Amino acid sequence: MDRLSLNQITTKNWTLPEAVAGCAEAGVGWIGLWRDKVAEVGVDRAAALLKEYGVKVSSLCRGGFFTGVTPEGATVDGIAQTKEAIEEAAKLGTDVLVLVVGGVAGNDLPGSRQRVADAVGELAPFAREHGVKLGLEPLHPMQCVDRSVLSTVDQAMDIAEEHPADSVGVVVDEFAVWWDPRIEAAIARANGRILGFHVCDQLVPLTDTLLGRALPGEGPIDHRGLRACVEAAGYTGPIEVEVFNAELWKRAGAEVLADVVTSYREHVA
Amino acid sequence: MDRLSLNQITTKNWTLPEAVAGCAEAGVGWIGLWRDKVAEVGVDRAAALLKEYGVKVSSLCRGGFFTGVTPEGATVDGIAQTKEAIEEAAKLGTDVLVLVVGGVAGNDLPGSRQRVADAVGELAPFAREHGVKLGLEPLHPMQCVDRSVLSTVDQAMDIAEEHPADSVGVVVDEFAVWWDPRIEAAIARANGRILGFHVCDQLVPLTDTLLGRALPGEGPIDHRGLRACVEAAGYTGPIEVEVFNAELWKRAGAEVLADVVTSYREHVA
Repeated sequence: MDRLSLNQITTKNWTLPEAVAGCAEAGVGWIGLWRDKVAEVGVDRAAALLKEYGVKVSSLCRGGFFTGVTPEGATVDGIAQTKEAIEEAAKLGTDVLVLVVGGVAGNDLPGSRQRVADAVGELAPFAREHGVKLGLEPLHPMQCVDRSVLSTVDQAMDIAEEHPADSVGVVVDEFAVWWDPRIEAAIARANGRILGFHVCDQLVPLTDTLLGRALPGEGPIDHRGLRACVEAAGYTGPIEVEVFNAELWKRAGAEVLADVVTSYREHVA
Repeated sequence: MDRLSLNQITTKNWTLPEAVAGCAEAGVGWIGLWRDKVAEVGVDRAAALLKEYGVKVSSLCRGGFFTGVTPEGATVDGIAQTKEAIEEAAKLGTDVLVLVVGGVAGNDLPGSRQRVADAVGELAPFAREHGVKLGLEPLHPMQCVDRSVLSTVDQAMDIAEEHPADSVGVVVDEFAVWWDPRIEAAIARANGRILGFHVCDQLVPLTDTLLGRALPGEGPIDHRGLRACVEAAGYTGPIEVEVFNAELWKRAGAEVLADVVTSYREHVA
């Protein structure tokens, strides 16, 4: 239980102060923060609340979008935004910044991937100066076109290995990678580079490419099997329950967090 | 143009006689057939029509579902159905049967994959006796849970390589594999084993896991790049345009086929 972390997206209708207080009340010692929620109260106030309630930050979501392509179709300056996110992560007391690298720019998949590798190379020293590690998170291949040209742990490792192990690593998100026939081997390859482990399940049938997720235990994913893999690869840090689910978001945060705790106990821990 | 094949799903509202006549009229020399459409007229009548119009069959869709798991939730006898499909393919004059292997049974992904490998082993000699090759078609990872535990060309090759090259091979479907960081290497590995090449594009945004497809040129996929890969791996056979798209299915078959020809010329050939 001391490894459970609430990824804030799971209780999307909670503000940051509500989520931090909710975690403290439920005995959940970790939280994975999102930048938009932090921005609502300001970084300093967020950091003060975390300290007050004794809740630690497992990671900050998120930097990235280095290709400039987001699901909203906007062209963003991913490098500038990620520098801000690195500074924010440091102020919030976490050494892990999750990166979602951006979709396919100009119908050029190889070129988009190269832009990601280049951006990581440019940002790694800056992140290191701030005591923050860059966590490359592969997303599900169905999100390749508009969210992430990084689709597998192997591919994330190809980039990470160009940098020191204490600077660039990989975030393993079950929903994104559970189907990968090479996942066990890829996680083993990421030994010492795993910066986060995000758990959730997949809805069956999969009716939405973003929201088709559920609490652990409601789908086909072998959570304990994947947890054993990341542990064998040296990861013993917090485990974030991160669920994008429209039904869950309609419910009261405290109820959702109680279900998070139950599903984590029954299917992950 | 002599390699273009109309996969029958693209003109879903056409019967088999309409599709065969439509291909002949449009100068399209190949068709990829679906078993449900064949069943509507019967195999013998279908074979006679194909001969009458001089249209060749690039492949028959489909055998498989060896795990028993289909999107409809039904438990099917995949081996028995695939034996029937093998006999049908032989009667229709094609040596390629496309296999969609089935989804995850009993939340056991490794076990489901083993069932697929076992079924292919059981069926390969039977197929060979009938002069039919088994074409393992990886589907998109978002279809892993309910359609296909086979998600990559590499994984298909792991199974195919256990059998003679003239017996078991791989069908490369762009929609399923375009995002794969290893796709070029995997196709190169499949040298001499490629039994089909299916082209279409991906809709952006991807609003449906099955129907989120479009004619070549309407999305991010590099058709000529992938065609070069399969050709470098020795495949010079028919190229099926296979598009699951609800809007396309509302239109008249002849119009759709005209657009198929245009998009093939402009983006694939």
